[in-house]
Amino acid sequence: MAEIQRRKTATAIIGGVRVGSSAPVMVQSMTNTDTADIPGTVLQVAALARAGSEVVRVTVNNDDAAKAVPYIVEQLDKQGLRVPIVGDFHYNGHLLLTKYPGCAEGLAKYRINPGNVSVGRKNDDNFRTMVEVAVKHQRPVRIGVNWGSLDQSLLTKMMDENSRMAEPKDAREVTMEAMVVSALNSAKLAEQSGLRADQIILSAKVSGVQDLIDVYRRLAARCEYPLHLGLTEAGMGAKGVVASSAAMAVLLQEGIGDTIRVSLTPAPGGDRTEEVRVAQQILQSLGIRSFTPQVTACPGCGRTTSTFFQEMAQQIQGYLRDQMPVWKGHYNGVEDMKVAVMGCIVNGPGESKHANLGISLPGTFEEPKAPVYVDGRLFTTLKGDKIVAEFIKILDDYVESHYSAKEEVGART
Amino acid sequence: MAEIQRRKTATAIIGGVRVGSSAPVMVQSMTNTDTADIPGTVLQVAALARAGSEVVRVTVNNDDAAKAVPYIVEQLDKQGLRVPIVGDFHYNGHLLLTKYPGCAEGLAKYRINPGNVSVGRKNDDNFRTMVEVAVKHQRPVRIGVNWGSLDQSLLTKMMDENSRMAEPKDAREVTMEAMVVSALNSAKLAEQSGLRADQIILSAKVSGVQDLIDVYRRLAARCEYPLHLGLTEAGMGAKGVVASSAAMAVLLQEGIGDTIRVSLTPAPGGDRTEEVRVAQQILQSLGIRSFTPQVTACPGCGRTTSTFFQEMAQQIQGYLRDQMPVWKGHYNGVEDMKVAVMGCIVNGPGESKHANLGISLPGTFEEPKAPVYVDGRLFTTLKGDKIVAEFIKILDDYVESHYSAKEEVGART
Repeated sequence: MAEIQRRKTATAIIGGVRVGSSAPVMVQSMTNTDTADIPGTVLQVAALARAGSEVVRVTVNNDDAAKAVPYIVEQLDKQGLRVPIVGDFHYNGHLLLTKYPGCAEGLAKYRINPGNVSVGRKNDDNFRTMVEVAVKHQRPVRIGVNWGSLDQSLLTKMMDENSRMAEPKDAREVTMEAMVVSALNSAKLAEQSGLRADQIILSAKVSGVQDLIDVYRRLAARCEYPLHLGLTEAGMGAKGVVASSAAMAVLLQEGIGDTIRVSLTPAPGGDRTEEVRVAQQILQSLGIRSFTPQVTACPGCGRTTSTFFQEMAQQIQGYLRDQMPVWKGHYNGVEDMKVAVMGCIVNGPGESKHANLGISLPGTFEEPKAPVYVDGRLFTTLKGDKIVAEFIKILDDYVESHYSAKEEVGART
Repeated sequence: MAEIQRRKTATAIIGGVRVGSSAPVMVQSMTNTDTADIPGTVLQVAALARAGSEVVRVTVNNDDAAKAVPYIVEQLDKQGLRVPIVGDFHYNGHLLLTKYPGCAEGLAKYRINPGNVSVGRKNDDNFRTMVEVAVKHQRPVRIGVNWGSLDQSLLTKMMDENSRMAEPKDAREVTMEAMVVSALNSAKLAEQSGLRADQIILSAKVSGVQDLIDVYRRLAARCEYPLHLGLTEAGMGAKGVVASSAAMAVLLQEGIGDTIRVSLTPAPGGDRTEEVRVAQQILQSLGIRSFTPQVTACPGCGRTTSTFFQEMAQQIQGYLRDQMPVWKGHYNGVEDMKVAVMGCIVNGPGESKHANLGISLPGTFEEPKAPVYVDGRLFTTLKGDKIVAEFIKILDDYVESHYSAKEEVGART
């Protein structure tokens, strides 16, 4: 088995949620509501948390947003949703965090972008001010570098130094190194200003997969801070999903990454929680964590011309998704279950035997019967037009009998 | 830069399409029509080819399918579609290939599943027969092992041997090794029966990501045959896309894989060509090949409450997709173009400068103007309600002036 060895890190704690190699890789997300819209933001945070986001970030971009934060936290708390809220600051974080102590106290972590916290200034006062607030409230910070807002004075300085070298590196190489240096220098400054090493998380996001792999390998090799991993501006639809999965899979497989966020651009009217499901799916696909039972289904071919098996695969997947909110409170380990829905005799029985529960539907010219396998053994053979309902009954019985009841239903969603 | 070093392999040729480390990683797909339905299969092969599938596989499961093959090839040829067709055989390939020489001649490659070619027999006659047809018609073969149809006598033998060892390995380990041994032994037998080493492609598909990584690393280390890479029974929707992307990204990043297929289960009524676009996106995300201009778009947050930028990102992405069938015949390298559509000032200008062409839309509380960057420099600033049309005009001009005209429009789609 290709075992993943997590890179050793310190453990940061975000409102009770641990981040680092001593904890499971954590899934987080970010709202796209106006933070000043308290009901709208509470609604979206709740949706993201219910989808499985263990931490949710909101932008804190102006006075109204900063004033809204304590109310958002309070209303979530009233709903029994104790998901930690992270504040995303750019340009004016030093002003907002000092002017609104209720905001500083309500947030579980502050994201500081070293590329725009001291824009146009010759000193690091704004950065220090934010760190001092973090020290006062004992909140961890994420030092989040992004190549779209990289510290331009640092980059210019490094480009100049590079141009004077006997063998100058290319501009891309210098940019990647500048991102790492920006993150590490800022972390050092944060420690000098009073934060402990285990109160600092780093990220260095770029929009290209190979660049992301490069910059995170460098970061990983040169510090012990937990790393927040994500491809920035990944894009829409399959492009965003594929690029994020590809980039993070390579790094997570190397043990790099302690919390992930998938930055998808929603389609107009799209569901913001998709980024949470994709993040969970990346971790579950790699065998890092389990969140929901997985349906193994064949792609179909000329042997499976009937769309019956596509419909059944979809129905079973939908059924599992719908049951999980109830199941996860009652059955230990049900999220590890594998269910196979297969379309013909070629790989059907074999793949079904590898699953906890599998059904091998008949292909076009096969006898119209569907053997069902439970833990690798033939359990029964279904026929007729009630196959889906009968299989779901077997599925329910399997869950009931194979996953031990939880002693108490967790209050956390 | 994280450079990918391709594993060295022989080069197989499938109807003129080269597969191996001397050629780009090739994208292929498979139909799900009844192969005997000639018009339906021709239509789907054409759609897959036009989407970018460089080779298309069809199941050849019975007499009617085998009889249909020469007609399918002929009709595609009449449409000017010279996409090589591969025949997928199980159980009865030895019978069909000898009974229908027109089928054997029409196909550009035969897929042989060593797990079911000699089921219930004590010798390898069926396998040899298929290879002899391949030798006669000088066609390459893929020896395609699948853990859903693994050679059970080989597995049983290896399980028995393992159980007698001082320190037996676990069953999973033995299964993975049996897949590799099945592929390598069959390849050896194919060479003994007269195929050249450069006429053999191997695959060993499983449905788990870590298993796939494991089994392909073993295969890669122990032969020089080109490898056909794919996660089998990946599943539906985001699950199939994420799992396939994650598995293949890790292996492709290690230089493993010479042709890929993404085995997605389509939703009922879904578009079969999605598997081609996902395969292309995996390769393009990793920087291995370019197929279509990429849109870098931010995920949006509380700073970009307006959905205008989501709509614009979608419109630009759609426009690029719609233009590509025309552009790819006329402009060299347009598939490498990067376009950024960004939603606010934080990373907007920076990310836009990293793209060939970028627009940084105003966030909620920003001045309503959108700077446009061309090759990293501010080109113009757009305002008003015609931003999309004006940006598309700049995009068209950029393509026209930056990508050299192709001397001849390729006949191949």
